[in-house]
Amino acid sequence: MSPTLAELGEAELLRRLARFAPPGQLSDDTAALSADARPLLVNTDVLVEGVHFSDPTTTAMDVGWRAVAANLSDLAASGAVEIEGITVALVAPGHTSWDWVDGVYRGINGALQEHGGVLLGGDCSRGEQRLLSITALGRLGPLRLHRNAAHPGDVLVTSGPHGLSRLGLALLQNDPAIRDIPLTTTLQDAAIARHRRPTPRLKDLQQLLACKPDHLPWRAGGTDSSDGLLSAVAGLCTSSGCGAELQSDQLPTAEGWPEGSRWTHWCLSGGEDFELVLSLPEEWANVWQRSVPDSRRIGRINDESGVIRWAHSHELVDAGGFDHFSQH
Amino acid sequence: MSPTLAELGEAELLRRLARFAPPGQLSDDTAALSADARPLLVNTDVLVEGVHFSDPTTTAMDVGWRAVAANLSDLAASGAVEIEGITVALVAPGHTSWDWVDGVYRGINGALQEHGGVLLGGDCSRGEQRLLSITALGRLGPLRLHRNAAHPGDVLVTSGPHGLSRLGLALLQNDPAIRDIPLTTTLQDAAIARHRRPTPRLKDLQQLLACKPDHLPWRAGGTDSSDGLLSAVAGLCTSSGCGAELQSDQLPTAEGWPEGSRWTHWCLSGGEDFELVLSLPEEWANVWQRSVPDSRRIGRINDESGVIRWAHSHELVDAGGFDHFSQH
Repeated sequence: MSPTLAELGEAELLRRLARFAPPGQLSDDTAALSADARPLLVNTDVLVEGVHFSDPTTTAMDVGWRAVAANLSDLAASGAVEIEGITVALVAPGHTSWDWVDGVYRGINGALQEHGGVLLGGDCSRGEQRLLSITALGRLGPLRLHRNAAHPGDVLVTSGPHGLSRLGLALLQNDPAIRDIPLTTTLQDAAIARHRRPTPRLKDLQQLLACKPDHLPWRAGGTDSSDGLLSAVAGLCTSSGCGAELQSDQLPTAEGWPEGSRWTHWCLSGGEDFELVLSLPEEWANVWQRSVPDSRRIGRINDESGVIRWAHSHELVDAGGFDHFSQH
Repeated sequence: MSPTLAELGEAELLRRLARFAPPGQLSDDTAALSADARPLLVNTDVLVEGVHFSDPTTTAMDVGWRAVAANLSDLAASGAVEIEGITVALVAPGHTSWDWVDGVYRGINGALQEHGGVLLGGDCSRGEQRLLSITALGRLGPLRLHRNAAHPGDVLVTSGPHGLSRLGLALLQNDPAIRDIPLTTTLQDAAIARHRRPTPRLKDLQQLLACKPDHLPWRAGGTDSSDGLLSAVAGLCTSSGCGAELQSDQLPTAEGWPEGSRWTHWCLSGGEDFELVLSLPEEWANVWQRSVPDSRRIGRINDESGVIRWAHSHELVDAGGFDHFSQH
C-alpha cells in the first residue's frame, strides 16, 4: 500500500520530492540561476483536476508530463532556445497516495529529460483538489516571438495538425458521439498520444531560427495553440491589430480526419495541441515548412483588425473557444 | 453587485487583471526579464483557502499582500537585493465574485509597490477552492544566504519578535483559549497587523550587507521563519550539519507577551512571522543588531549535529512545527 501524504507528513514528502531534483537543489527556500547574457523568459501555467485532467483519462505520469509540456510550449512560442528549469507548486488532499505524487514527478522529470531543464524548487500544500502550478524559466534566443508581432501580408503557418488532443480525450472518455464513426488505428493512436504526451515544439522553433533568410529582420508573430487553433490566431490578430483569412480547404487536420462540423470544430477549437502558430513573411514560411514535415500553411494575415474570415466565402469564422471559468 | 468569474468569462477576467501589470505585460504567454550580471533567485509559494487563509480572518487585499510577502520573505532570506517581479496563478470557483479577485490583486500590487517588482504574468483557472500560487524572481546581492551556511560558533539572531502572527490569528478568530488573558492594546494591534500584513525583511537584509566587517568573508547562514522560529533554526542546523543552543531567557517575544507554555509554543512554532533567522559570526551579529532595533539574539550554533537544546538545562527543545498535510 502506498502511504498517503497525511501519513508521510510534509517533511518526508519534501525529502522524497528532493530526489527528483539535482542534489541539494530543494534544500533551500529559493533556487539560484546563474547570471546569463541572454534575457530570461518566464511562464506560469496551472493544471487543475476536473478541469485539465482526471483519473479516468490521465495517469499520474501524464499529468506531470502535460504540465511541463504546457509550460515549455509557451516558452517555445516566445523564442526560448534553452530551458533553465521549473518550479512546481503541488496542492493535494491529505488522502492522496504517494504513488500518485511519485508518478506526477516521474512524468515531470521525463518531460524535462526530453526537453531540457531541471526541477528548481517549489512548494506543496494540502488542498481539497489536486492541482499543479508550474513556472518555467528559459533563455531567449535571437528572436522574441510575440503575439503582437504579426504583420499584414504574413503567411499563417502551424507546426502540425490540430484537433488530435480533443479526439484523444473523446476516445479515452469513450464518448458516444464518436462511437459509430470509423477511425483508423493510426489516427486513434496519434490522438491518444497527443492528449497524454503533447510535445512542446522547441525543435521546430530551432528550425525557424536556423532557416531565417538573411535579408529579413528578426521579426515574427507567434503563439501556441494551447487554447485552440482559432484562439491562437485570434490572439495574434488582436495583439497585432491585424485580421486573418483562413483557407477552409487547408484546415490542418491529421491524416484520416473525418469530415463534418464536429471535426472542423475540434480542429479549430479543440485545444491542447500545443503546436506553434506563426505569422511569417512568405519566404521564411516556405523555407521553414520544408524543414518541418508536419507543418501546415493555414492562411494569411491582413489589415482587417480583429476579424477572422474564411478566404473562400469571406464569412466570419465562428469562435467558441475554451473558457476555463464556464462548465463544459 | 460584483459579477462572478463565470459571468465575466476568462477573456474579460484577463483583461481586468492586465490593469494590475505594466502596460502590455500580460498580453503574451510569457514575460521576459532583461539579461543581468547578477544571478537570479526564484521562489514559489502557494496559499490555499482553509489552510493559509479564510474569509473570517483575511480580507481579499490581505490574501494578496500575504502571498507576495511570503514569497519576498524567502527571497530576502536568500540574499535578494532587488525584486524583479512575480507571476500569479489564481484558481477559484466560477461563483467567486470579481470584487474578491480585485481585492487580491490590489493587495498584491500594494505589496509590490512597497517592496519592489511588478506583476510579470500568470495564469488562472476554475477550481473548487480559492488559491494563489506565486513565483517571485529577484536579483542576488553579494551574499548568498543559505540554510546550509551556518558554522559552529556563530551567533543566532532574528530580525524581530515571534508569535505575533499566531496571536493575531487567535484574536481574529476570537479564540476562547485567550479570551480571559489580559493583553495590551499595543500587543493586540501589532499581532493583528503582523497576521494581516507581514513585512518581508528586505531592508534588514540590506543592513546586513551594509554592515559586514571588512575582514569577514561573505558567508552567513540564513532562512526565514515562515514555518516558525524553531523550524527555521532546525532547518539551519540540519542543512549545515550543526546544532544550536537557545537561551530560554532570550526568547524573541514582543513587549507585553504573557508567560506560560502556550505563549512559549506560539513564539517558537506559531509560524508566519516572516522574520530573518540568521547564523552570523559574533562581530557581524553585533553590528547588525545595532542597526536593526527589533532584532534579537536567541542563541548560538554548535557542532552537535541536528540537535537543538536549551542553553540553561541542556534539555531538547520540543518541536511541533506546522505540517501542511495534517489537519490542525
